[in-house]
Formats: sequence, structure tokens, C-alpha cells
Amino acid sequence: MSGTADAARRDLARIVGDDAVQVPVADRSLVRDMTETRGLSGDALGAVFPGSTDEVAAVVRWCAKVGVPFVPRGGGTGYAGGAMPDAGSLVIAPGRMTRVREAVPQAWRMTVEAGLTTRRLHAAAAGEGLWFAPNPGAAEQSQLGGNIATNAGGPRSFRHGTVRSFLTGVELVLASGEVLVAGGAARKNVEALDLTGLACGSEGTLGVITAAWLRLLPRPEVILPAIALYPDRRAGVAALEAAMACGCVPTALEFVDDRAFAAAAATYPRHAEPGSFAVITESAGPAAIARAEREIIVDALAAGATAVDAPDSPGEQRALESWRDGVSPAVVAVRGGKVSEDFAVPFDRLGEALDMIERIAAGNGAEVACWGHAGDGNVHASVLVDRSDRPALLRAEAVADAFHAVPRSLGGSLTGEHGIGMVKLETAAAELAPALLDAQRAVVDALDPAGLANPGRKIPPARML
Amino acid sequence: MSGTADAARRDLARIVGDDAVQVPVADRSLVRDMTETRGLSGDALGAVFPGSTDEVAAVVRWCAKVGVPFVPRGGGTGYAGGAMPDAGSLVIAPGRMTRVREAVPQAWRMTVEAGLTTRRLHAAAAGEGLWFAPNPGAAEQSQLGGNIATNAGGPRSFRHGTVRSFLTGVELVLASGEVLVAGGAARKNVEALDLTGLACGSEGTLGVITAAWLRLLPRPEVILPAIALYPDRRAGVAALEAAMACGCVPTALEFVDDRAFAAAAATYPRHAEPGSFAVITESAGPAAIARAEREIIVDALAAGATAVDAPDSPGEQRALESWRDGVSPAVVAVRGGKVSEDFAVPFDRLGEALDMIERIAAGNGAEVACWGHAGDGNVHASVLVDRSDRPALLRAEAVADAFHAVPRSLGGSLTGEHGIGMVKLETAAAELAPALLDAQRAVVDALDPAGLANPGRKIPPARML
Repeated sequence: MSGTADAARRDLARIVGDDAVQVPVADRSLVRDMTETRGLSGDALGAVFPGSTDEVAAVVRWCAKVGVPFVPRGGGTGYAGGAMPDAGSLVIAPGRMTRVREAVPQAWRMTVEAGLTTRRLHAAAAGEGLWFAPNPGAAEQSQLGGNIATNAGGPRSFRHGTVRSFLTGVELVLASGEVLVAGGAARKNVEALDLTGLACGSEGTLGVITAAWLRLLPRPEVILPAIALYPDRRAGVAALEAAMACGCVPTALEFVDDRAFAAAAATYPRHAEPGSFAVITESAGPAAIARAEREIIVDALAAGATAVDAPDSPGEQRALESWRDGVSPAVVAVRGGKVSEDFAVPFDRLGEALDMIERIAAGNGAEVACWGHAGDGNVHASVLVDRSDRPALLRAEAVADAFHAVPRSLGGSLTGEHGIGMVKLETAAAELAPALLDAQRAVVDALDPAGLANPGRKIPPARML
Repeated sequence: MSGTADAARRDLARIVGDDAVQVPVADRSLVRDMTETRGLSGDALGAVFPGSTDEVAAVVRWCAKVGVPFVPRGGGTGYAGGAMPDAGSLVIAPGRMTRVREAVPQAWRMTVEAGLTTRRLHAAAAGEGLWFAPNPGAAEQSQLGGNIATNAGGPRSFRHGTVRSFLTGVELVLASGEVLVAGGAARKNVEALDLTGLACGSEGTLGVITAAWLRLLPRPEVILPAIALYPDRRAGVAALEAAMACGCVPTALEFVDDRAFAAAAATYPRHAEPGSFAVITESAGPAAIARAEREIIVDALAAGATAVDAPDSPGEQRALESWRDGVSPAVVAVRGGKVSEDFAVPFDRLGEALDMIERIAAGNGAEVACWGHAGDGNVHASVLVDRSDRPALLRAEAVADAFHAVPRSLGGSLTGEHGIGMVKLETAAAELAPALLDAQRAVVDALDPAGLANPGRKIPPARML
């Protein structure tokens, strides 16, 4: 190890303690994330695991002093390489910061630290009779800080919005090492520019998120699912339109396309045609309200359906939920791997988007399966691939990249919830309007003039413009 | 008129046409807003009424070229002086920009120009079977651009969020004259930093908002009000807590305190004790769902109430609504005027906030009446005053200023929905944390280095820090 690394380890240990420093990185999972399945991995000078906001601030000030870039890291479950470090940078992982600082159930609010996993946050809220509705997935691993940094979504953002909607404030260690508190416990607040919102989705480029003030919902008495199957995509998309026109705003309005359904048909809890297009909804709330809502939605979904199932028993509901959770693994199992693309289009363009995906895949001899958050027009398109076949993997990645044409031509967004990270940085530089690129670059440069907060991620650098 | 003014008039007329320029300002209402009731009024070099985004951009480029500050102005219904110009500045009022550029009812979305009044926006949405839930007041006059620039709220933000929640994108002419499109039609979008959110609540300091992409809701089949009366504030606040604990999230959860109720008791549609504390809710949606919700809420409100009214006939509902609309004028009528203060506290501190308000008023020999958006902890406190009595008006303003101690000591925000404007600029400079002031200043300076976009409003200048 070089003298520089020795000095770094000594300096950082003085801040966070010996046990909370790895220089060099011993646990190599810290330099990878879900993009590992695309063959990507990073490197780092080291990693630290601060236990408090003061420690995060001191670490960031150290980075500023010695000019070391830093990478805030939550659970490492991102799909965009947003938390995958470059060589020479310091990973700052606040996963030990898991305190619930305040819980006030009668006001539906909690103040919690950023290292709390999604699962533990759900449990902590439930323990207070409250609900953190976002369920973006990877609940055991993903952390609140990462959920905020990516403005995570998932199925329930259809009704309740993405993580942004659940925040009234954030505590953020800026690249200067200063601790910024934006917003706070009040649900309405226009005393300053909305820096809470700015932090949300910033993918680490504004600093390290250390805590958040959450605006929660009452814990729903029931969460009632419904699923309807259709003979083909056209009928499925028509049913989605009928659901949008029924007057309700269900908690979730999801789809699983015919190919994804076929992959998971064997484990479907009831009889189903393998090539069905599935529409799934959730109605959550007090029982009387959720039942009334599901009844209206099930009526709307009935036209054109080959089957409609609205399970009432907890056992049947769990069976449906675990089948749904198994769709992605089932799709992976077809060839051993997948390359996934995330984008969003306006809901009215969803059918066209799925048609385009199929045409692009077919034109490249690729097999693709789609599912996603239909109400939000948020599509996850997976190109099936044998990961051990390197040329096939590269071809699959090229096909996934070709899907960028879909949101571009349909007035959508390049990424609905996975983020830009490093994986889509060049695409963002090429596709976003110069005025938007300039403006966000100016904002980031103003708050991080030295460019040490997660550089080379999210915000295309000036030279790419 | 000076040669400079002549040249300005000629230059601006070349951009927007003779009829759309006033240099000097002929219509003096353009240099005032609702702060006129506090004796404030501004002045300006002139005013322009652009008819398109291109015209706005050309006007702003002219301002940049000649170094003239500009003030974006919607309906002029603000309470903070945010759109009240300083001498030498140019008022840019996009009130002629009222086009609905796109309406896609099946996707619950519209793209509309910023000059549309709140009333016309509500009507346009309703015509598509959609709902723009925010109802911040002054619907005939206030415009969407101003609603966005202040992140307006009103009663219905309790369930549905402030205007921010209804935006998926904005078109904004930056101080450089460049047109920035942030976001767009997609409901989920993390391809860039959230500049849509940053514009929302920026009070003109980032430029002129010219259009917005709206994420709307299905038009509710019914909007069912309920009102419950309590003998005193303590019982009323207990009832609000019971409503928060009933498992529902009503569209609105409002309060009118005993003194405000007393002022309006004569017009209350039913018999009521004059000094009642009123709790008002709204349940909106498909009839079956709204009825189920209101039933649960009415049950929760019953304990301790002297009367509960849940009118079903449209006539009774309208009577209640117009009584509610009349509370503010009735309070004004007591002494001929009021000085209003707007702040928000966490819901759990609402009772304490009302107690503090009363103590501060009593200690200063002032009479105060409060109402507001209880679920959001958003209090509007009005000091009653005879406006023709200048010393009394100054005393009333001092009392209203003393209310700033309430959010400060209860962990709230200085302003929940009226904004900082110029009226609270010094308070913001004194009360907000230096890190927050520095960060928002840096962001604004990065996007408007010459400081021409509504200077001296919202963002305390460096010299005040």
C-alpha cells in the first residue's frame, strides 16, 4: 500500500474509528452494484461507514481538503451504476445510521436516518400505525438514502407518488462538508427554494443524504389486489385504459406482458393461458373504502378479460404477491440472464411503446419481456440473454440501448426510476436539451465547485455537451 | 418621459406589439398586489403582456441586454409582495397566454399555458373529465403561473399535495432568455435534476414560467363536505386528532377557530353557538368511496361535538361552501380590515400554535381570528384592524410579525403557502439557517448571474447574510 493510502486510512480512522474504515476496500461488493450483471464493476481508494451526521461531515471535509472524490452508497441495489465508485474515490456508506430520531403517529410523521433499509423503514412505520407506501423493490438491502437519491418509485407511486411525495425535509452533507437541512417537519413549506426536491433524485451529486423528515400515510387496514388476464397485448392495453377511466385512483396499476407471463405461467396460482397479458391493481385503505374501490376497478377490468381474480383470503393474496415477485426471476431463468431497460412514456403512448419494443427486439433477433408500472407509463423491458455468452451479452446490451428510441419518440423520459448513474450518462448527454443540461450542470457546479460529489454520474460533464 | 423610457417602449413594442406594452405603467393595479391592504405598493419602468413563449424569451433577452430587472406577474393575488415591482423594473405578465396546448383525458394529463386563471383551468380540466384539485383561492384572478411560482396549496393539498404534486414538467424562460423545459408529459422522470420542483415555489427568481405539463386526477363524481362544531378550541383540536386517527385521508381537513366562527356565525346555515370551533372535511371521489369515507370521518368527529352536519343535497352543500367562503370577509368586516400571517407547524403542534397566537395577541391588546388547513398544520392568523387608523395598522403589523415566533419555536415553517416575497425577506434572512440561505443563493446566482429575475424577493441577498 502506498503512503497516501496509509495516511488516508489513519486520517479516516481518526474520524470514524478503525473498525469503520476499509483502505483498501476489503469487501469487494462495495465497488459493485446491480450493474454487475452487465459486467460492470468499479474500484475505490477505500470505504468508510460513518455512524453519525457529524462523522459524515468530517469525512466529506477530509475529502474536500485532500481533493478525493466521494461516492455516497446505500444498499448498492441500483441498476445505473450510480453508486459504483471510480478508482481513487472514497465510498461513504451510512448504513450504520439507522436511528428513528422521532416518530409522531398522530401527525403521520417520522424523522429517520438514511441508512435504514426499506424493509426496516416499512416495519418502523407500521409499528406506529403508519405507512411508507413506496415499495421500489430490494427491500432487504436498499436504504432510504438511496431511495431518496434516486427518487425511487415502484408500483405504489401511481397513487401516492414517488419517494419525493413522502419527504418534507432532508438532511444533506454538502460537498463542502457543511450540513444542509432543507425543509423539516412541516407538511407545507415555501420559506426557501425546494432543495428537498432537488436532493431527491440527485444520485449523490449534491452530497450525502443522512436523514429525512417523512410525511407518511395511515397504515391501510387492508391491501386488496386484483388481477385480470387478457388474450393479447391489445386487449390488455384496452383494459388499462378502462381502468384509468373508471373514476378511481388505485394504489397500483401494473402490467405483465405476454412474454413475461409465459415465463412465469407455471407458478401462476390459478389456471391461465401461458401467453396472457396481465393487469394487476391494488386497493389500499380502510376496508369499506378499499372494497368499494376494488369493486369498481374489477368491473372496469372485466371487459375482454379471460379471467379476473380478486382474492379475499390472506393466503390467496400472498400467493398472488409471491407469484408477482417471481416474475423477474422466472424471466431471468429462461436464458440465465437479462439486460434491463427502464423508461417512462405518457400513459396514452404505452401501447405504442410496447409495440416499438417488440419491433426493435424482433429486428435484432432478440427475445424481450416487459412489465412495469402501467399507470405511470413506466416500462421495464428485459432482453433475455445467456450471460456466459459474452458476444450475446454485448448484443443484448445494444438492443437495450436501442430501446432509448422509445421514450425519445413518444415524449417520455429516458429513465422512470432507475436513474442515469454512469450507465446512461452518454445517452443523457446526447438526448437531453442543451438548456436542461446547462442548467443542471450550473446548479451542481454552484453547490459543488470542486466536483467531488459522485463525479461522472447523473450530470453529463461540460466536455460532453 | 425620458429618452430611456422611449427607447424601452419602442424596443418592447417591436417584440410584443404596441398594444401589449405600457411604458410607463398605465394600469396602476399592475404595481400592486394583495399587500396593498398593508399599505404597500411598487413602481415599474413598464409592463409587457407577451402572447407566446417566444415573446417572453425575447423580452427577457432585452432585459438581459439593457440590464433591466424583470418581475413575472400572474393575477397579482399574492400576500407577500412577490409580484410587486420595484421602480425601474419591467413587469412581464403572461396573462394572455391561456392556451390548452394538449389535453389527453385517458392519461389524466394536460399541457397548458401559465396565464390561465385557476377558475378557467378548473373548467378546462372538468371539461375533459379531469380534476386540478388545488384550490388556493382567488380563482377568478390567480393564474397557473403564479400558482406554480408560489407552490400554492389551499384546503385540498392535505390529501393531494400542493401544486407541485400536479406538475410533471414546466416551461420556464430563464434570466438569460433561454427557454428551459424541465420534465415533460411522463409521470415518472429522473433523467435530470428536479428543476420542475425547483421552479415550483421560486417566486419568479428563476425566470418566467410560461407553461406546465399537468398530472391531473379523475373528476370526482361527488365532493361531500362535513362540518362539526365544538364548544372550544381544546375540544376542536382533539377532534382533529381523532380525524387523523380514523384511517382515512380526506381531501381536506380544515378548521375555523372560535373568533373567526363568531364573526361569521350570523350567516351560518344552521343554528350554532357563536363561539364554536369548527372542523370541516371534504371527501371526494366516486360516490360509493366518498360516502364510505365521510361516514368514517363523521363517526370520528362526533365525540365532543355540539353539532355534526354532513349535507347531502347540492343546495345544502353550496350553502355550507358559500358560508365558508364568507368567513374571511366576515372577519374583515369586524373592524374593516385585517393583517394576515401565514405559517405552518407540524400537525401535532397545532394546538400549541393556536394557544401561542392567542397569548401574543392578548399580550398586545390585539384581536385575532384564525382558520386554515389543519391537516397540514397551516395556520392563517388575522389581526383585526381599522385600516384607516394608521397607528393601529402599524401595531397590527407588529403583532403579525410577532407570530413568527410560533413556527420558529414549534419546528414549523415561516410560510406555508403565501411565500416570502418581499414581506418576509428580512425575517427569512434572520431565521433560516446560514447553510440553507447560502445554498439557495448559490443556486439562484448560478442560474441568474446578473440578478435580474425578480431581485430582492424570496432569496435574501448576500449582504443580508
